[in-house]
Amino acid sequence: MTFPEIKKLQNHFAGYLDKHPFLGEPESLYEAQNYILNLGGKRIRPIALLAALQAATGKYHDGLPAAWTFEIFHNFTLVHDDIMDKSPKRRGKPTVHKKYNVPSAILAGDNMLLGAYQHLACYDDTKFRALTNLLTKTGIYICEGQFLDMQFEDTTAVNETNYLKMIELKTAVLLGASLKAGAIIGEASKEDADNLYNLGINLGIGFQIMDDILDAFGTNVKVGKRKGGDIIANKKTLLLINAMVLANPEQREKLDYWLGLQHFDEEEKILAILDIFSELNIKKLAEKRMTAYYKEAQKCFDKLSFSSTSKAALKELIELIQTRSF
Amino acid sequence: MTFPEIKKLQNHFAGYLDKHPFLGEPESLYEAQNYILNLGGKRIRPIALLAALQAATGKYHDGLPAAWTFEIFHNFTLVHDDIMDKSPKRRGKPTVHKKYNVPSAILAGDNMLLGAYQHLACYDDTKFRALTNLLTKTGIYICEGQFLDMQFEDTTAVNETNYLKMIELKTAVLLGASLKAGAIIGEASKEDADNLYNLGINLGIGFQIMDDILDAFGTNVKVGKRKGGDIIANKKTLLLINAMVLANPEQREKLDYWLGLQHFDEEEKILAILDIFSELNIKKLAEKRMTAYYKEAQKCFDKLSFSSTSKAALKELIELIQTRSF
Repeated sequence: MTFPEIKKLQNHFAGYLDKHPFLGEPESLYEAQNYILNLGGKRIRPIALLAALQAATGKYHDGLPAAWTFEIFHNFTLVHDDIMDKSPKRRGKPTVHKKYNVPSAILAGDNMLLGAYQHLACYDDTKFRALTNLLTKTGIYICEGQFLDMQFEDTTAVNETNYLKMIELKTAVLLGASLKAGAIIGEASKEDADNLYNLGINLGIGFQIMDDILDAFGTNVKVGKRKGGDIIANKKTLLLINAMVLANPEQREKLDYWLGLQHFDEEEKILAILDIFSELNIKKLAEKRMTAYYKEAQKCFDKLSFSSTSKAALKELIELIQTRSF
Repeated sequence: MTFPEIKKLQNHFAGYLDKHPFLGEPESLYEAQNYILNLGGKRIRPIALLAALQAATGKYHDGLPAAWTFEIFHNFTLVHDDIMDKSPKRRGKPTVHKKYNVPSAILAGDNMLLGAYQHLACYDDTKFRALTNLLTKTGIYICEGQFLDMQFEDTTAVNETNYLKMIELKTAVLLGASLKAGAIIGEASKEDADNLYNLGINLGIGFQIMDDILDAFGTNVKVGKRKGGDIIANKKTLLLINAMVLANPEQREKLDYWLGLQHFDEEEKILAILDIFSELNIKKLAEKRMTAYYKEAQKCFDKLSFSSTSKAALKELIELIQTRSF
């Protein structure tokens, strides 16, 4: 599958990013900020913003500064999340707090968030205000989502509704907001802006559910190994949450046994849990949920008032995310 | 000394703060944010904002939301600084990361910064933009200042210029920005806004130098004990930096000896360093610097175009800070 329109936006955004590194003193602070940016990434959020703007106006150039803002904002959340999650690696390289130290990573994250706001200064008063408020509201949602995610680690009382709310806040709203930012810059109607936002929310939730499915049932192509990281870590994914609800007493006992074990053979635990998932048809159930969100996203896309020519990049983006072709 | 005008502003701000606690879910996140606010504090920055607005317009009510923003912003920096500095206590109570945990404190801080931006929404487009940009720029300066402060811990190559720049960025700019925010809301002239900003910078630096002096030469009234925390920790204060420069070879050798010791009697080290400070007349030198900044602050105050009646609260604020009457 090829995505020529997305490729074009990616190239332009990469060029803009190259031309706008963090600069300032003390150098080491700004070096840490550039370090995480230079680890790469899919740049999905800035591309979404540009694609939405192109859908609304046929052009995307005016969206580049805001696209930068949303990408920097996303990276700020990664830097702080990695500290909270004690993650040693990101994209195969040391995380910021591992390469530098925790205090530097806290400050680099804070300063990136501030830098994200600063970069909106080129927009006129109305757009500046709308974009700033959108960024703020989205940031608050993300903090709430990350906090919920951390709370879920310490409780078994997570139901599907809570879980879906958490992934909406933690990851989907930023995709929705990026698309909406494109609508704001393109002066789209409120209806189009709302549909773009909801498109992003539904696409984001669907993508996150697929993530859960792939962690359990996919294989890590690079090392040809089963993944199962969520299972090993007792992560309350959509799969586990549903399995807990649907399990008969015997299955529930098995689940509790494996979830309660402190020391275990990882492969054995994965296979045992997958057995129960399989008995309960959990994969099908999760795929059904995912498909429902993707369908809803498609509906939002279809409602947009823009021409199909201008919507080409946006259409590709949806395909690219659904097929995980990045 | 009494400060009736400041007392009035403090009471009004305290009432506003009480009426605007953080609310939201997950509750524990917002609880952590309210916890730090409820530890109290001098509320110098919001009072400065209100005093500047009153100077410009004779009224201060319109400044309450922005005053809230600047106080919340200040508290965000405290929460993150306490993590970086591994401080267990603030105002005699556990710091946020001690009472909750580091991930919660990182998130609470992030969410307070976002909440600070959010609370500016009541201002019209022009003021919203000016206040948002001011907050952003100030935040960036503070991150740079905190980073420099951390860097100074690991090097002996700190000179007075670097040190003064660090305290300007880390603490003085926020006082300057709070005063300038009052000018923005009061639609003061650019000259008055700049003078208010510079007033805050000079007052803030002077205050910080006094902090250094008191740590070495003051006594902790509550426990009737010598302070000397900076000396024990080898902190590069204005006093130590100047002592290093002015010391003769013998004094320098003594300084290096005490700075290099891993294990020592605290009282003995304090007295030894104070001896050198005394031989070099360091206290007088630091007081001279402080006085110069306070004089400059007074000059900025005198240049303000406002009536002396409307400047009454601002005048009190300067006195209150210089006499440390809080």
